[in-house]
Amino acid sequence: MNAEIIAVGSELLTPRRIDTNSLWLTDQLNLLGVEVTAKTIVGDDRERLAAAFLTARGRANIIILTGGLGPTEDDVTRDAVAAALGRKQHFRQDLCDAIEARFRRRGRVMPEINKRQAFVIDGAEALPNSNGTAPGQWIEENGHAIMLLPGPPAEMRPMFTDHCRPRLQRLLPEQVIRVRAYRIALLPESEVDQLVAPIYTKYANPATTILAAAGDIQLHLRARCPTEAEAERLLDEVGSQIEAILGDRIYSKNLDPLEVVVGAALRARSQTLSVAESCTGGLLAKRITSVAGSSEYFLGGFLTYTDRIKNRLLGVPEEVLRENTAVSQPVAEAMARGARERTGSDWALSITGVAGPGGGTEAAPVGTIIAGIAGPTGCRSQRAVFVGDREQIRTLATQLALDMLRRELNRQ
Amino acid sequence: MNAEIIAVGSELLTPRRIDTNSLWLTDQLNLLGVEVTAKTIVGDDRERLAAAFLTARGRANIIILTGGLGPTEDDVTRDAVAAALGRKQHFRQDLCDAIEARFRRRGRVMPEINKRQAFVIDGAEALPNSNGTAPGQWIEENGHAIMLLPGPPAEMRPMFTDHCRPRLQRLLPEQVIRVRAYRIALLPESEVDQLVAPIYTKYANPATTILAAAGDIQLHLRARCPTEAEAERLLDEVGSQIEAILGDRIYSKNLDPLEVVVGAALRARSQTLSVAESCTGGLLAKRITSVAGSSEYFLGGFLTYTDRIKNRLLGVPEEVLRENTAVSQPVAEAMARGARERTGSDWALSITGVAGPGGGTEAAPVGTIIAGIAGPTGCRSQRAVFVGDREQIRTLATQLALDMLRRELNRQ
Repeated sequence: MNAEIIAVGSELLTPRRIDTNSLWLTDQLNLLGVEVTAKTIVGDDRERLAAAFLTARGRANIIILTGGLGPTEDDVTRDAVAAALGRKQHFRQDLCDAIEARFRRRGRVMPEINKRQAFVIDGAEALPNSNGTAPGQWIEENGHAIMLLPGPPAEMRPMFTDHCRPRLQRLLPEQVIRVRAYRIALLPESEVDQLVAPIYTKYANPATTILAAAGDIQLHLRARCPTEAEAERLLDEVGSQIEAILGDRIYSKNLDPLEVVVGAALRARSQTLSVAESCTGGLLAKRITSVAGSSEYFLGGFLTYTDRIKNRLLGVPEEVLRENTAVSQPVAEAMARGARERTGSDWALSITGVAGPGGGTEAAPVGTIIAGIAGPTGCRSQRAVFVGDREQIRTLATQLALDMLRRELNRQ
Repeated sequence: MNAEIIAVGSELLTPRRIDTNSLWLTDQLNLLGVEVTAKTIVGDDRERLAAAFLTARGRANIIILTGGLGPTEDDVTRDAVAAALGRKQHFRQDLCDAIEARFRRRGRVMPEINKRQAFVIDGAEALPNSNGTAPGQWIEENGHAIMLLPGPPAEMRPMFTDHCRPRLQRLLPEQVIRVRAYRIALLPESEVDQLVAPIYTKYANPATTILAAAGDIQLHLRARCPTEAEAERLLDEVGSQIEAILGDRIYSKNLDPLEVVVGAALRARSQTLSVAESCTGGLLAKRITSVAGSSEYFLGGFLTYTDRIKNRLLGVPEEVLRENTAVSQPVAEAMARGARERTGSDWALSITGVAGPGGGTEAAPVGTIIAGIAGPTGCRSQRAVFVGDREQIRTLATQLALDMLRRELNRQ
């Protein structure tokens, strides 16, 4: 069984608004073992919506429409679906009474136009709306389940949970979907794919997806089985092979980002961290402190954007700066050492480099990043040349530093 | 002319990921006078994508596909569009060489699978990708303009701006759309609307939109006219009234964010800046240094997450911390003074507060933020209590500090 979701509303076709109902619905459907195979967003246009609905019905067993059930001329979902199915609508006095009572409870008189919300497509079941005026509708037709739900999440969600989910469960075979996710830092997507493709291509179930962001790859395995135990067994079978190949390149076996993984490792060891940032200008600390509770292990640090300030705040010797330039391993290591000494932290990370777009030299072209680490056992640094714009290079630099710390902590 | 946008990627059909590219594209298309009439999201499935593409082509003049141009088996956009159009693809050695060169610059060998990205649909123009390996494609066919663009925003956006927009402009009727944008910090959307609605409601052209983000309101006026001169005259007429009402609450008359405005003001005065951050943990400096060339005026600063470190790095006296707690105006001012003295900068900004979710007290509930400023004429601070989640509160805090500096600089 697969589903398509159609979000209705011209406001969803502007640059400012996005359909987020479909995320919640997808989660609910996945838990029932139903995959969402397409999502469509159409404006308040009867013909376009009817066409989009028929297209969806041609491809999916389950069609969920959200929005367009209001009382105004703009609200076209009832009419469009009725027209597409070649059905009429009928007026339901009991629904009208319920809408009227809702207005009365708030000390208002129901406007005449709200009567439109009491029309039901022939053959459809009306679904009560506990949080608004618009009833939903449920239609079963030639092996299709069709749901018309209101747009506001506070109305849509309880209506789906209370009235659509039980009806769907009745129609669905017993089946569950379970997901396992791995995150890998600083490897290119194609390299991850080359490593794991020999494994995942042998399996249609679980299905494998690779998602790439700057210096951060996610590998998702989705198993679909009649029981949870079978799904977990399949994920164990494929996951163990992937873990064997990728080894400690995997930094997370759930969806935690690197700053959460490193924070948990520091907390587990009751150790503290400080930073010294040059070209990332606060981004490394910003990532670390975006984790709630990071004050347990993060002490603070230094932003040293110029040579003079590196010397003044961190004690990087002037001759080291002069002889090596600021973008060098000796400077990165002196920065980390300086931050560790001055804050009294167990660990210190440093970053220096050229984020661009200007400032590159032959020795240190734009994208050159050096990350340093100082800890209980000494000081090390690593050099990389990243490609990308200023923001990407800065993000990759923080990824490099955090991954160095992760590996050091694993070694302890 | 109307457009449909198709976002390709199975990850966009999961409960966690959403297509945001289409928002940016909608904005760009609207500026060209093109309306977006539907958006579709499909997974990495050749047949489904081909069908969705044909449906879109049946309804719209302009079809933009994003994503699915990567090197793996999962990346099906090229194949699906070629199949739907009944066209073949051909290998382009020059594109392959460019991809290979990109890998070489990063000290890597191009994996064999990346060759797939050098295939171009017959009759299509390849669009260069300055930020990634996947070239885009532009196809004109029976009055349709079809674009295949990469999924990562950093690749998609410049490709659209540099290569698609000029081609679209050639196809579109002569009509100009000119936009004037104002940005206002820290005023609620409803307050801005109450102030300016009496003006903008008198005009259907230009159309007015108010966009709200955390502590940041954008007011857009869009004039659509046969000539640029007419559009500019209209914008002057309405804009001058809005400027008179909002006065210095407007911090930007283009789309420049606060950190760019403040940076330009510092550069114009040849003055320098440092920071001392507590609960924002680097976010303020990250914003300041996200501006290319910020090293001309930003010296660096201090991240002081604990009381001890505030004392140790910034010299905030222990008794001031003890008597007032860290979230207090005396501490914020001592932090700013400490940063200014230790870096030798002309100006220093400080932030202390409670970003949450934990850590609130009766005297300083979650959301309490104090921003301090030290400069040539002394030291001041300002207290605010913001509502929102951790990230919103941190963003609002940086907005408060930057706006304080903007007003101080304007006074100089």
